[in-house]
Amino acid sequence: MATIDQSARAQLFDEARTFSHWQEREVSDALIESALKMAMLGPTSGNCEPLRLVLVKSKAAKERLLPCVSSGNSEKVRTAPVTAIVAYDTLFYEYLPRLFPHNDARSWFTSNEALATETAFRNSSLGGAYFILALRAHGLDCGPMSGFNPEAVDETFFPDGRYRVNFLLNIGYGDREKLHPRLPRLEFGEIARWE
Amino acid sequence: MATIDQSARAQLFDEARTFSHWQEREVSDALIESALKMAMLGPTSGNCEPLRLVLVKSKAAKERLLPCVSSGNSEKVRTAPVTAIVAYDTLFYEYLPRLFPHNDARSWFTSNEALATETAFRNSSLGGAYFILALRAHGLDCGPMSGFNPEAVDETFFPDGRYRVNFLLNIGYGDREKLHPRLPRLEFGEIARWE
Repeated sequence: MATIDQSARAQLFDEARTFSHWQEREVSDALIESALKMAMLGPTSGNCEPLRLVLVKSKAAKERLLPCVSSGNSEKVRTAPVTAIVAYDTLFYEYLPRLFPHNDARSWFTSNEALATETAFRNSSLGGAYFILALRAHGLDCGPMSGFNPEAVDETFFPDGRYRVNFLLNIGYGDREKLHPRLPRLEFGEIARWE
Repeated sequence: MATIDQSARAQLFDEARTFSHWQEREVSDALIESALKMAMLGPTSGNCEPLRLVLVKSKAAKERLLPCVSSGNSEKVRTAPVTAIVAYDTLFYEYLPRLFPHNDARSWFTSNEALATETAFRNSSLGGAYFILALRAHGLDCGPMSGFNPEAVDETFFPDGRYRVNFLLNIGYGDREKLHPRLPRLEFGEIARWE
């Protein structure tokens, strides 16, 4: 296979940016659902698929989320057409007999809570990244955020304690006029070595 | 923006698979370096960029890695043209005065090791996912793996303790003839809800 064409590359990586300001343009639920279906195709260890999402769109749900986010992120969340609560299922392994049927994968986790939590956190982060790129592939823009109170989000949206928030993700059509220049990136030699 | 074209979509998600068997076809170092540069454009919180990589290609380095991986992954690593050790820098925040210059972001982490570790783990996982999709965008195939002894990898490749492994990632041109059918995915209603 060759490298994907320049316009797809630009849309996914080269021209894509993290947005804080949004166009007043409605976002189709079906488009986000299609992006999530695409993101779920990305690989997770032992096909464990621990990613879970609350797609916060109604004014009532936004009002419950807003007190949980840091002051610097409040306006971004308030104005975004949708804010996804990217979370993981601490009991993801209950699905493994169906998702990874050729081994007793469930037993790897039932006796080792630390391994289960680490696996859920790593693989829901992978899933969140696939979702960011799948949303961009669908022509949408993203604004991921870590500035919020995770305990407050969990208490508000996951009161039974089974799911836990990983990060928040604003979704919409970004306002390019309000972007700042892209921040610098580390060079190859600073982050990688051949052996 | 519209949805990316069908061939890019297929290459990144719909037809992409996790490979365990590899074609005997050389992989260009420049292509992997280009994919990493692309992946680094993906968002990380506060532009923290904690992803670090060892690209294991030489026979000598493979021999050091092989005793660290589980028996089920040994042949995959041995035969892959390149195995990337996807890791994170526990002191990633030392770069923040350069990467995120408009705040004293470094101080958020110097006094809170748990937050630093969580941030490094989350964002190196995001970075690893961007790298998987960037490699696919470059026409390469991947095989990510969690079946290895992380302490052994860290002792062998990061003896000073600054970097820690997150997961392993075989890279090459996959052998489609040896693929099994794709494993099932959870449905939208099982993993997400609108609010």
